[in-house]
Amino acid sequence: MEHVTVRLRWIARAALALCLVLLGTLGAQAQRDPLPSWNKGPAKEAILTFVKDTTEKSSSKYIEPQDRVATFDQDGTLWTEHPMYAQAMFALNRLGEMAPQHPEWKEKEPFQSVLAGDREAMSKFSESDWLQIIAVTHAGMNTEEFQALVKQWLATAKAPRFDRPYTDLVYQPMLEVMKYLREKDFRVYIVTGGGQEFVRAYSEQVYGVTPEQVVGSSIVTKYDDSSGKPVLMREPKVFFIDDGPGKAIGINLFIGKRPSAAFGNTAGDQQMLEWTQAGDGARLMMLVHHDDATREYAYGPGGGLPDTHVGTFSDALLTEANKNGWIVISMKNDWKRIFPFDQ
Amino acid sequence: MEHVTVRLRWIARAALALCLVLLGTLGAQAQRDPLPSWNKGPAKEAILTFVKDTTEKSSSKYIEPQDRVATFDQDGTLWTEHPMYAQAMFALNRLGEMAPQHPEWKEKEPFQSVLAGDREAMSKFSESDWLQIIAVTHAGMNTEEFQALVKQWLATAKAPRFDRPYTDLVYQPMLEVMKYLREKDFRVYIVTGGGQEFVRAYSEQVYGVTPEQVVGSSIVTKYDDSSGKPVLMREPKVFFIDDGPGKAIGINLFIGKRPSAAFGNTAGDQQMLEWTQAGDGARLMMLVHHDDATREYAYGPGGGLPDTHVGTFSDALLTEANKNGWIVISMKNDWKRIFPFDQ
Repeated sequence: MEHVTVRLRWIARAALALCLVLLGTLGAQAQRDPLPSWNKGPAKEAILTFVKDTTEKSSSKYIEPQDRVATFDQDGTLWTEHPMYAQAMFALNRLGEMAPQHPEWKEKEPFQSVLAGDREAMSKFSESDWLQIIAVTHAGMNTEEFQALVKQWLATAKAPRFDRPYTDLVYQPMLEVMKYLREKDFRVYIVTGGGQEFVRAYSEQVYGVTPEQVVGSSIVTKYDDSSGKPVLMREPKVFFIDDGPGKAIGINLFIGKRPSAAFGNTAGDQQMLEWTQAGDGARLMMLVHHDDATREYAYGPGGGLPDTHVGTFSDALLTEANKNGWIVISMKNDWKRIFPFDQ
Repeated sequence: MEHVTVRLRWIARAALALCLVLLGTLGAQAQRDPLPSWNKGPAKEAILTFVKDTTEKSSSKYIEPQDRVATFDQDGTLWTEHPMYAQAMFALNRLGEMAPQHPEWKEKEPFQSVLAGDREAMSKFSESDWLQIIAVTHAGMNTEEFQALVKQWLATAKAPRFDRPYTDLVYQPMLEVMKYLREKDFRVYIVTGGGQEFVRAYSEQVYGVTPEQVVGSSIVTKYDDSSGKPVLMREPKVFFIDDGPGKAIGINLFIGKRPSAAFGNTAGDQQMLEWTQAGDGARLMMLVHHDDATREYAYGPGGGLPDTHVGTFSDALLTEANKNGWIVISMKNDWKRIFPFDQ
């Protein structure tokens, strides 16, 4: 009998130990700060309050898990956009690579200015100029070939100032917000003015956002099975511009549900925030303000850098934000750490 | 000491009982037939084999959960499409409701034929005729108003022959396939030639498919905040036709990943099946053949009903299916039960 008692005692102790471990884990989970790279302040507080309000069953603002949607702009909201969007750098780089096969570009704008490295002229490029560049650098190949080009470029290209791969320049505080929202059963979408196929080439690896949850601008594709194996050929023609009002349209088109939370940083995000705010229940609208010249860049209200084609946090947007109660995130004050590589 | 021993023995017994219950549940799960409305045969076997091959870790064809995507056509694949698509019935019904405000329609095609109930003329409507009908019945309102109209119509309209709501006429065997795939971590998409906003009005309730996982045809929407609260106005202009080659394009555009399994029933699904088949690893391509005049309708190869604008399983499609090894589902032979209301 004695050895049975000992064995039973051992089982009971093991069960008790297991329970303690489980309870300990739960306790640690509850106490863990989900946003360690954020300084204490109204921005961090707003995120924590929003998540609490929408995910605790007892809350009057509770949202069912299937209706939890959050949308994030990319350039300037999730990663550095200054002095030029990564995708624009990709296009210019590719133009350089293609130039030997196109001697006519030496005398034709906008190509001429790009090949001459004329930054002054490039900063004045119109939308039509950029569309011409996109047409020759982003089309004339199939979707798989394009993704391979993007991946290849990202693997070697270095961003100015930081001399690091572009995909290193993602904002650690925003990665934490995305992760936290996902843990709370939100579907986290990127809603970008940038190219949908471009962003999909790295979104899963960099942000944990699958291709299915990337909404962006796109060009026309054409089904081609002339070679036996079907491919989708990228045509030099705009299909959809996911920017400004297009962000609200894109959200309805691709997601079909209204987000409860939206994060942006420029006037191109204004309608996404308006569309988000117009829904019922708890709402969270936030704008990233680049006011940290030391650790990244300072532009927009109070910033030292001039307006470029790169999305700027305009004074008009600040007025809108104040009027609508949108929360402005100060990179300088709200973010303890900017990049994952910062210590 | 004795009472301690008794208590420990009790704890151990309780733990053992709990284990047995857990094991029993697991055992029942493993043995349960996930497709009870399917008769034994090559179609059922193909689905079971595909799921086993792609979800068991030891399989050489294993697919990681994040890459598990399956796409389903709707009309004729998930619910009855004969004698006319539900959405076409909705449009015709709405035309009748609007007619008193449009006396000019009495002398203008295609409206004249619809209002006269001329089925013969309607069966010959061109795509342009249908687009005119869609323009007046599906546009000129915002997205929320449109969804409300669809829901209202579905709540009262009855399908011919069965005299039941259209949403009753879903195929029980396909609901089982969708559920089974979801249980195995597949993301299950509807990829329909029908209107995306139309299908989203009921997809979650009827199929368990959220709006985010409905890919379909769409008209242009326009952001309008003139009234203070922003809305998306539906314009009488086609934006995207998700049919034929458009299904492969739509899959890439909206999902960004290639499906491993695709289900359709007409030539409009051919490119979706080709696109699915062109990927690596385990593949499952299936076509529903409507060969059951007793329980539903018989059309397509060997069927008694004439070709209508309703998607037909053409002889050419059957040739393609045979050539490519796509599996044809015989409603008559493969489905034990057709509708959820069948006993």
